[in-house]
Amino acid sequence: MQLAEIITERVRRVTATAKVALHEPCFRGRELAYVTECIETGWVSSVGSYVDRFERDLAAYTGAKHAVVVSNGTSGLQIALQLVGVEAGDEVLIPALSFVATANAVRHCGAQPHFVDSDEASLGIGIAALAEHLGQVAEVLAGVCRNKRTGRRIAAVVPMHTFGHPVDMPALLELAARYHIEVVEDAAESLGSTIGGRHTGTFGRCSMLSFNGNKIVTTGGGGAILTDDAALAKRAKHLSTTAKMPHAWAFYHDEVAYNYRMPNLNAALGCAQLEQIDGFLDAKRELTQRYLEAFSDLPHVRLFTERPGTRANYWLQTLLIAPELAEQRDAILAATNGAGQMTRPVWELLSTLPMYRDCASMATPVAQDLARRIINLPSSPQLIMGAV
Amino acid sequence: MQLAEIITERVRRVTATAKVALHEPCFRGRELAYVTECIETGWVSSVGSYVDRFERDLAAYTGAKHAVVVSNGTSGLQIALQLVGVEAGDEVLIPALSFVATANAVRHCGAQPHFVDSDEASLGIGIAALAEHLGQVAEVLAGVCRNKRTGRRIAAVVPMHTFGHPVDMPALLELAARYHIEVVEDAAESLGSTIGGRHTGTFGRCSMLSFNGNKIVTTGGGGAILTDDAALAKRAKHLSTTAKMPHAWAFYHDEVAYNYRMPNLNAALGCAQLEQIDGFLDAKRELTQRYLEAFSDLPHVRLFTERPGTRANYWLQTLLIAPELAEQRDAILAATNGAGQMTRPVWELLSTLPMYRDCASMATPVAQDLARRIINLPSSPQLIMGAV
Ligand SMILES: Cc1ncc(COP(=O)(O)O)c(C=O)c1O
Ligand SMILES: Cc1ncc(COP(=O)(O)O)c(C=O)c1O
Repeated sequence: MQLAEIITERVRRVTATAKVALHEPCFRGRELAYVTECIETGWVSSVGSYVDRFERDLAAYTGAKHAVVVSNGTSGLQIALQLVGVEAGDEVLIPALSFVATANAVRHCGAQPHFVDSDEASLGIGIAALAEHLGQVAEVLAGVCRNKRTGRRIAAVVPMHTFGHPVDMPALLELAARYHIEVVEDAAESLGSTIGGRHTGTFGRCSMLSFNGNKIVTTGGGGAILTDDAALAKRAKHLSTTAKMPHAWAFYHDEVAYNYRMPNLNAALGCAQLEQIDGFLDAKRELTQRYLEAFSDLPHVRLFTERPGTRANYWLQTLLIAPELAEQRDAILAATNGAGQMTRPVWELLSTLPMYRDCASMATPVAQDLARRIINLPSSPQLIMGAV
Repeated sequence: MQLAEIITERVRRVTATAKVALHEPCFRGRELAYVTECIETGWVSSVGSYVDRFERDLAAYTGAKHAVVVSNGTSGLQIALQLVGVEAGDEVLIPALSFVATANAVRHCGAQPHFVDSDEASLGIGIAALAEHLGQVAEVLAGVCRNKRTGRRIAAVVPMHTFGHPVDMPALLELAARYHIEVVEDAAESLGSTIGGRHTGTFGRCSMLSFNGNKIVTTGGGGAILTDDAALAKRAKHLSTTAKMPHAWAFYHDEVAYNYRMPNLNAALGCAQLEQIDGFLDAKRELTQRYLEAFSDLPHVRLFTERPGTRANYWLQTLLIAPELAEQRDAILAATNGAGQMTRPVWELLSTLPMYRDCASMATPVAQDLARRIINLPSSPQLIMGAV
């Protein structure tokens, strides 16, 4: 049998389903009750008790001092970058291996992505390689880090916790501090993932979560900004709600701002979802075990598992093909998808997309290698929790 | 009795309620049924049958060939401006008398607002005054309109149909054509309003609707772009959904784009709401009649009514205080709000806000006058349709 057929058969064995999606939302809690309450009370829009509650619940769950909910992860990252001072013309270090939204959010601030290579152990930013790169291209003068080649300020670095696997944040914080670069985490995929017991998204000065439909917890569409800084949280709310000044009736706004609000209807869904996250996390760990077993005798593939000292949310199950078999990736994708088992490759490297091709970038050998070898497997918690 | 007390008493007579909001959503149709279906099927997020249906329903209702739903009106206007070619550094003509989002959307394209005075008869752009202003500041060279004073291209004009009262679009289209300026309607407030039977939002090359919680039809938060141009509609969808190229599995995106999607959960609410719009419009017309009667004997105030040849949706009921009594506005606002009857002034002129103070502007005597004299009155359809 071909590798593609073997893998298809193993995936099929784990999912035990003829047709299965990559990741589907799982509504087994009070979703309908909360949403019904919104409709019956008329509180569906931009203010409401579920917005406030979801912010409190997210702060409590992650241990961040403040959470500000927004329309989605992309808008959350844009605001988070603005909060730490990213301005038009700056450069922001982001992984070449990420979803396009990470780069778009940088551009929505008027800044430019500067691409960073990956680390095979975390799938996130390669910190040692970045240190070496900064040693070559960056200089710090009067507390400002500059790219000597482009002349631009390097204002921030955005670690992204790929598929829920945490970046080594203590090491990155140390490097960023040395270069006077702000740290903003793209924790879109890592709600429930921790490093030494501390939640991803609480290491950077601020961070972003996503509650898109494919995420571990969904609000339909939505996101949040986490920070321990009360002033930043207040400004996040201000910037994401048209910068209206409080007044009994006057419409006075004091800066260019956004409508990046999360409606109460969506926050209601989020509250119900977050109540169930422990069950989702358990299911995802159990699913990892099953995939591990299913692939244990195959020397050419490896299920990606959490690094020591970290706890992954296992949002998307990740298979790595051996480098020498990477050219079989598309055959494996075709076979699994053809057999109703939805699998996906990782993203095209952002540094290769037409609109980002000319941006600053370090060499990305690890990211290029990973991009050829990653296959995400069906990951819904329902695969363990069963159909309703 | 003071004017403030008299007005409070008359408003109270019409609303017949001790405590009443300016505008509340009215859920009397299939809202809960549709939203329940989303949750039970798991289709809450960025694709789904209600998204498609809401787009079809909006096109059918307005008569636009295409509708593309987005996260809200602000994002819709930004995309609409980009669609007609507005670029960083351009100027866009917008009314000084509008909600701040009109100006923010211009800035989100990297362009600059150029403020236009109002017309007392429509509350929208003063077309004759604008023609005179353009005669002074604008020149057209090789099909490009330029502001001679700033050197910037004047790329577009954004008429806004204030509180649902249509701008004289045929006259504006004629003026814009003369100056080679694109027309994008801010129809955030005017779903259901027509000019000669033709729906607002179908005159410009494209236009935007808002379904914010305070609008005549709500999705919690949401908006739409209308256009007759199939290519623009396709590009609106592309730009608002991360510019992903269609492919069985690859993540390839071909331009800097946005996550401005409307989740299916919110579109479900919109479908149910739009089914009821005729009832809402009837209720609002009836409410206008009641306010007209209630104020008929007061010489110093006038209820604003639709211009001949137009049909307003009467989204927000609007009282105009006589110029010589304009300084009583705040006393009227204090008295009505103090008595539980929520009223609101119109917006501060955008040209006076700190972030827009230095933008190009024509003289705005009419807008300044209107801004001192407008008071919006409680406008919910429930005031006619009754409590459930
Ligand atoms: C790594 C990453 N960054 C950013 C985003 C953007 O989040 P959203 O889709 O909520 O805008 C996502 C999710 O889609 C993501 O996976
Ligand atoms: C005139 C006008 N323009 C733009 C908007 C922005 O719409 P949204 O609040 O949906 O972003 C609104 C409504 O809030 C509006 O009234």
